[in-house]
Amino acid sequence: MAEFKLDLARHERIGLDEAIFCAGKTADQIAAILDAFPAGGGLLLTRLDAAKFQALPPRLRDALDYEPLSRTAVHGAPRVPRRGDPVAVVMAGTSDVPMGREACRTLAFNGQPHTAFTDIGVAGLWRLLDRIEEIRRAPVVIVAAGMDAALVSVVGGLVRSPVVALPTSVGYGVAEGGMPALHSALASCAPGVAVVNIDNGYGAACAALRICSLLARREDGPAAAAGAAHAVTP
Amino acid sequence: MAEFKLDLARHERIGLDEAIFCAGKTADQIAAILDAFPAGGGLLLTRLDAAKFQALPPRLRDALDYEPLSRTAVHGAPRVPRRGDPVAVVMAGTSDVPMGREACRTLAFNGQPHTAFTDIGVAGLWRLLDRIEEIRRAPVVIVAAGMDAALVSVVGGLVRSPVVALPTSVGYGVAEGGMPALHSALASCAPGVAVVNIDNGYGAACAALRICSLLARREDGPAAAAGAAHAVTP
Amino acid sequence: MAEFKLDLARHERIGLDEAIFCAGKTADQIAAILDAFPAGGGLLLTRLDAAKFQALPPRLRDALDYEPLSRTAVHGAPRVPRRGDPVAVVMAGTSDVPMGREACRTLAFNGQPHTAFTDIGVAGLWRLLDRIEEIRRAPVVIVAAGMDAALVSVVGGLVRSPVVALPTSVGYGVAEGGMPALHSALASCAPGVAVVNIDNGYGAACAALRICSLLARREDGPAAAAGAAHAVTP
Amino acid sequence: MAEFKLDLARHERIGLDEAIFCAGKTADQIAAILDAFPAGGGLLLTRLDAAKFQALPPRLRDALDYEPLSRTAVHGAPRVPRRGDPVAVVMAGTSDVPMGREACRTLAFNGQPHTAFTDIGVAGLWRLLDRIEEIRRAPVVIVAAGMDAALVSVVGGLVRSPVVALPTSVGYGVAEGGMPALHSALASCAPGVAVVNIDNGYGAACAALRICSLLARREDGPAAAAGAAHAVTP
Amino acid sequence: MAEFKLDLARHERIGLDEAIFCAGKTADQIAAILDAFPAGGGLLLTRLDAAKFQALPPRLRDALDYEPLSRTAVHGAPRVPRRGDPVAVVMAGTSDVPMGREACRTLAFNGQPHTAFTDIGVAGLWRLLDRIEEIRRAPVVIVAAGMDAALVSVVGGLVRSPVVALPTSVGYGVAEGGMPALHSALASCAPGVAVVNIDNGYGAACAALRICSLLARREDGPAAAAGAAHAVTP
Amino acid sequence: MAEFKLDLARHERIGLDEAIFCAGKTADQIAAILDAFPAGGGLLLTRLDAAKFQALPPRLRDALDYEPLSRTAVHGAPRVPRRGDPVAVVMAGTSDVPMGREACRTLAFNGQPHTAFTDIGVAGLWRLLDRIEEIRRAPVVIVAAGMDAALVSVVGGLVRSPVVALPTSVGYGVAEGGMPALHSALASCAPGVAVVNIDNGYGAACAALRICSLLARREDGPAAAAGAAHAVTP
Amino acid sequence: MAEFKLDLARHERIGLDEAIFCAGKTADQIAAILDAFPAGGGLLLTRLDAAKFQALPPRLRDALDYEPLSRTAVHGAPRVPRRGDPVAVVMAGTSDVPMGREACRTLAFNGQPHTAFTDIGVAGLWRLLDRIEEIRRAPVVIVAAGMDAALVSVVGGLVRSPVVALPTSVGYGVAEGGMPALHSALASCAPGVAVVNIDNGYGAACAALRICSLLARREDGPAAAAGAAHAVTP
Amino acid sequence: MAEFKLDLARHERIGLDEAIFCAGKTADQIAAILDAFPAGGGLLLTRLDAAKFQALPPRLRDALDYEPLSRTAVHGAPRVPRRGDPVAVVMAGTSDVPMGREACRTLAFNGQPHTAFTDIGVAGLWRLLDRIEEIRRAPVVIVAAGMDAALVSVVGGLVRSPVVALPTSVGYGVAEGGMPALHSALASCAPGVAVVNIDNGYGAACAALRICSLLARREDGPAAAAGAAHAVTP
Repeated sequence: MAEFKLDLARHERIGLDEAIFCAGKTADQIAAILDAFPAGGGLLLTRLDAAKFQALPPRLRDALDYEPLSRTAVHGAPRVPRRGDPVAVVMAGTSDVPMGREACRTLAFNGQPHTAFTDIGVAGLWRLLDRIEEIRRAPVVIVAAGMDAALVSVVGGLVRSPVVALPTSVGYGVAEGGMPALHSALASCAPGVAVVNIDNGYGAACAALRICSLLARREDGPAAAAGAAHAVTP
Repeated sequence: MAEFKLDLARHERIGLDEAIFCAGKTADQIAAILDAFPAGGGLLLTRLDAAKFQALPPRLRDALDYEPLSRTAVHGAPRVPRRGDPVAVVMAGTSDVPMGREACRTLAFNGQPHTAFTDIGVAGLWRLLDRIEEIRRAPVVIVAAGMDAALVSVVGGLVRSPVVALPTSVGYGVAEGGMPALHSALASCAPGVAVVNIDNGYGAACAALRICSLLARREDGPAAAAGAAHAVTP
Repeated sequence: MAEFKLDLARHERIGLDEAIFCAGKTADQIAAILDAFPAGGGLLLTRLDAAKFQALPPRLRDALDYEPLSRTAVHGAPRVPRRGDPVAVVMAGTSDVPMGREACRTLAFNGQPHTAFTDIGVAGLWRLLDRIEEIRRAPVVIVAAGMDAALVSVVGGLVRSPVVALPTSVGYGVAEGGMPALHSALASCAPGVAVVNIDNGYGAACAALRICSLLARREDGPAAAAGAAHAVTP
Repeated sequence: MAEFKLDLARHERIGLDEAIFCAGKTADQIAAILDAFPAGGGLLLTRLDAAKFQALPPRLRDALDYEPLSRTAVHGAPRVPRRGDPVAVVMAGTSDVPMGREACRTLAFNGQPHTAFTDIGVAGLWRLLDRIEEIRRAPVVIVAAGMDAALVSVVGGLVRSPVVALPTSVGYGVAEGGMPALHSALASCAPGVAVVNIDNGYGAACAALRICSLLARREDGPAAAAGAAHAVTP
Repeated sequence: MAEFKLDLARHERIGLDEAIFCAGKTADQIAAILDAFPAGGGLLLTRLDAAKFQALPPRLRDALDYEPLSRTAVHGAPRVPRRGDPVAVVMAGTSDVPMGREACRTLAFNGQPHTAFTDIGVAGLWRLLDRIEEIRRAPVVIVAAGMDAALVSVVGGLVRSPVVALPTSVGYGVAEGGMPALHSALASCAPGVAVVNIDNGYGAACAALRICSLLARREDGPAAAAGAAHAVTP
Repeated sequence: MAEFKLDLARHERIGLDEAIFCAGKTADQIAAILDAFPAGGGLLLTRLDAAKFQALPPRLRDALDYEPLSRTAVHGAPRVPRRGDPVAVVMAGTSDVPMGREACRTLAFNGQPHTAFTDIGVAGLWRLLDRIEEIRRAPVVIVAAGMDAALVSVVGGLVRSPVVALPTSVGYGVAEGGMPALHSALASCAPGVAVVNIDNGYGAACAALRICSLLARREDGPAAAAGAAHAVTP
Repeated sequence: MAEFKLDLARHERIGLDEAIFCAGKTADQIAAILDAFPAGGGLLLTRLDAAKFQALPPRLRDALDYEPLSRTAVHGAPRVPRRGDPVAVVMAGTSDVPMGREACRTLAFNGQPHTAFTDIGVAGLWRLLDRIEEIRRAPVVIVAAGMDAALVSVVGGLVRSPVVALPTSVGYGVAEGGMPALHSALASCAPGVAVVNIDNGYGAACAALRICSLLARREDGPAAAAGAAHAVTP
Repeated sequence: MAEFKLDLARHERIGLDEAIFCAGKTADQIAAILDAFPAGGGLLLTRLDAAKFQALPPRLRDALDYEPLSRTAVHGAPRVPRRGDPVAVVMAGTSDVPMGREACRTLAFNGQPHTAFTDIGVAGLWRLLDRIEEIRRAPVVIVAAGMDAALVSVVGGLVRSPVVALPTSVGYGVAEGGMPALHSALASCAPGVAVVNIDNGYGAACAALRICSLLARREDGPAAAAGAAHAVTP
């Protein structure tokens, strides 16, 4: 009995490629999915921790572009980069880098340019104010922050573009697991901030991609909307 | 001692007008704010329940366009409607109408066209499938749903545009207060759904407005981005 | 002092055989229970993880039919399969297979035919709609789903048979531990969905077995109701 | 803009009539729904509290069979009673009667015979043991209990039929809102107990109806399965 | 049986006068306490809502300096104001005024000068930056904020003085009751922020008073530390 | 259909009379229970708020000994007081009196002497230390405390007798509903403290009565154990 | 700097010996405490897991009577057993044995006879009813149960003696960590059940010891109350 | 891309040096930060567990003053000790030492004298009362306590100085993770207690440092306020 069924029409239907969430799957299940994947396409794997990556057959490991901090891997070719302003991925602290980088890798896989801004938390406000003009130019701003996630409201009050809050599980005590960061983002005093699940860098990037793809459809017509082709795998 | 300070530069800074959240304020405080508001502009009031509205001085009541189900009021003139495709506001059930309508009223106040879709919950899937093509054409789709909020994932898996989930507090028992709807939306199996706080119709609309305003800036240039002028108050 | 007392009259009393929940027991305790079990019967072990299975004495390991993904083992013979339409066990994603398979193994142990449907989550609705007619024919439908468990409501709105929701702990962030899936199932907008504990594949199967056994008593008389005999152990 | 869309095909699709959950609706919305309902059918209203019932227009009030303790009303005719053994509705205490009666009224509206057993909580075990043989004969047993809901496990360990636990919000302190009753039912040590949302008497009855309707289809053929006709309104 | 026992030695022991928390007491109980209070002293009443104040005997009402927004009343004379820099009481929004004012009234009752800063939430950062130099000069800064309480971290990162966070219950949805504000304050990325219970303006003021009284003891000697005398009641 | 069934054998079985928990019952239901109660006995009613008491028929109101603060009423005669040392009922603050008094009234109804100690919270430790010798002489000590319930641990560390903690819902913010008091009592650093539900004065008294009745059985023989007769109703 | 201070006067003050809770301590800290303990006494160690026990110096390991399932160790001599009826320690399932045995070991260390009753959960009610007369004779009944803890209410409704509920963390899903068992025990429909923290076998035994010691003081005079001497270490 | 940005101006801005929270960082990230740190300064590392410390390059390990129980390390030189009364760090039990010591190490690093008081929990009140006069002399009192944290209220009611509660995660069952200790501290019946996050010894020390630094500025002038220089690294 096959335990999976790939949703290969997803890109056509909603403009996003199927991705494999590896956290609840065994290495055997992941290997079976990769083997079943049609050649010529690209596939993103998320939540693939180092131990599980090592447990894959060598031929599959070699075929993957794996990045351990974000626990992401790319199978096959990412899409050809789109032109246009980069999405801003703003990370409050060094500990937020894994989640922010999951977002960056998802954007890159889908051909979307982006810029990462690291360690600019609110406790040292000057670090943010130094970069705010550059951030304001981005079509979409992703803000990755844990603990009190105060950065979300500060950014949300300073930029005009859509803001996607990516609360992270960075913290301890009451912040264990990321609930305060999530709740702060949802209760942000800055209007119109949209939020994704805790540590969901993939989802934050997909929310940004839905917006960027809408922009592309309007600016470049439906052909562009269909999305850039996958790059030729080297 | 003045107890408030209007943020009149908000539209210029982030493209959204200041709005007054009335839930924690007394009628006296609200009246003082309205009296301090400069003539010629427009102001949106949210969470203004009927009893508090009735407690305002008659001259202020007469100046407000009040709608009781959504508990919103408009002071002064809304902005002149923008052209372009309407945002879709999809409501799962009749009980979700108050929150959905808060979103609709916020969009209208900001000059953004929209279409409301009511009572198309997942338990009768045909009600959604009948309207899905129309929904797919919207630049942004707001989905207001309580209880299990299953509608969020179903819509998120069928449309390509940005989806803003608006979980509502409709429900009882485990659904009391709306937490399951919020958590379902955050844990949605459809990628790239962005979420706002429970019952936050105003915030869902603002998230949509940030996207529509981005589109307008790109399509019509910075002048359009500055936003439509306020209509002349009748 | 003996630390256990087998409930050998359970099948006669409620139509379900005693089963051993291994999660809180040491390998020594489990071995003592198996040794005390009378020959000729059958016993199901649940939540028997691979390490604990390996810690059992070899003679007991050899006597068990062990399946690692579902962490179940059968000691002695399962009951002879009943005739009749198979129960449907519908799993939203690959990560839900362990819990769904615990249900399948419990059904099989009790002589109840079933069909497994895998990876047909709501994000790709076509995967469900392709199979819905077959699912509608089942006397009971078990739906195993984690994260937002939206599949429960969609199935519950499309089938007429009793639906048993089996929320799973698949997910992270707000979905960590499976609470949103449980709450979505309990708050389902589809009427008459009944729910079991998170990851309780055994319980979902038992709920289905109570229904199927009721059907059998009505269709075939009390003799059938007494349940199929245990098959002769090979 | 119409704020509702009746699901008149629901009975044909899943064997249960549309019902109106009144808790989140205004009297005006409910009146509009009743006015739109086609003549000759029957409609169940749940969570219709006395104040909201009194706020309906007199002509609609007169047309309703209203019962205040269960907050239910029947519009039009219920279905003609089916023959067969009555469902058992077991209530732990007097305070659980409103929820148990919602279940009874839902069963009656759908033509399903039932017997109510009141005030037989576990603290006085003899009250249950006196009635257990009668309860064991029911095709389905609904157990309504709040506080610790210990009755669910005791009944679940004594009867062979499907058991639907209906946890109630009866209690205070840690039991405020009914969570312990819900969790006890979900964690019941009796296997195969299925659970509905807190205070969801309507849902418990619908779960029972799905089972009884399955029995009827098997015993009397598809014609019976289609369900009894609505009685002629007096 | 007397139901209370005044702690008249509290000021001598810890430098703070006894105060009466009225929320859980009947008007009769409060009246009995006031009647038992020795003449010549001062007593602060907190959480005295308007209805309960009105239910007091007229002679007691007349003897109280009551302020409805903060629900505080002063019986007898407050202490003579100390000299020195004012404590800063910073409130994020108009809805936080009741809690902030409870702090202000408590400070004033204890003879501590203070300055109130209102409506300077983070969503309009300029409102805070305009006043920050003045705030930095305060010996202690109390920050009252609800919703995401982002103001706490921003202030905590900009001032050198002790910061006491006063999370408020202002908010709805996930912010209902004030938990996210509390958790944000506790998880603040600004080091050394100390926190009091939600809406506990009285406690925030007492924490500030402990610090100011320590300063006074060091600067003016033990006599000053004993605290200013109560002013002569007018 | 009768909605209740009195457990008249309870005293014989467990040494405690049946009591009626009125919170979830209508005045009509309570009246029916009182009317069904056999003459000559005694019945305790708990959680009978003043409005519901007023809604009872005058003849029943007159027959009840009602005390509004504790919301308790006695129907018929309490039991003749036992001899022996009084149980100590220690209350932290004035706001804890209603719950403490529910315990006192339950003890008195069952013929158990007791002494009440009020307003001796830990913030003024001298108030407790003044009375500790008297408290130490009690056979059982009930400690009613809300907020942080620190009194439970302090008393538990100073007395040798059984200590029953009665956490109360007195408090706000994080203490809203009494959870911290309950959790503090359960996690008490004083060994052997036993705890009852929040605000459950009745239950605390019953736990004490089980102990005192055990003492009486041992000291006076089974006849005494059977319990004092009900006093003759005046 | 010494990191501990033994409370050697505890037995004199409250009738219970000091015990060492090892969960949060390093093996070095535990060794230092044991070395500081005066010869001739007895000391109970709880929550001493096998790895930490193995990390103690051999000379200390040899001096301990260690039991791994309950994770308890006795240093020195337990007290000489008292005469009198044994306390009943009733355990719902095999998985509850570790917690029940912690209670048994604590009772034995303090010289209190007891009888253990294992695997008599409510799902097979006959297992309890078979032993109930023996249980009813005990002066105190400890009930250890996880999951739904229904056994607590059933026992509480059948016995007259003090009942101490010991909720356990046995369970998964909603029962993970033992909260439902705790809440069921606190909300028990059987009056007068007293509860200790989850998995706190030591505390349940101490609560029983406070009662038994009260009995002994009354029956045998203060000398007995002072407690049996420690047995001479073998 | 650099993943961090040191906030070297923090001491000048708020009087506290930058510290590195190591829990969410890899050893590689920590090493990079240490390498980037300018010579001559001092840097505190917190939450550096032994395994991560061992994973640092030997040259960095040698440069650190590491203390495993508190998981803190000092890089470079601490500040020269200030003169003045020592801060009191009061720990309830041996298990609270790690958190208390994190506070002590943070104070020492910042040149603040302190005294540690260990194992003086409330269950043996004499242990506290023996030391209370010494504690009362401290300018600030930090109270580290887990479980019920009753020590916070007792100390808060006995001392006049600012009290900073440091709730710890010591405990199990309901106290797992430290929530009851946190909530007890926040709901303390002693007025003016300020609280930091669970296990946040670093934050408690910073709160104390803000106060001590305020004292120093007032007593010694702004030069002192600027803080002691870093000691010359040995």
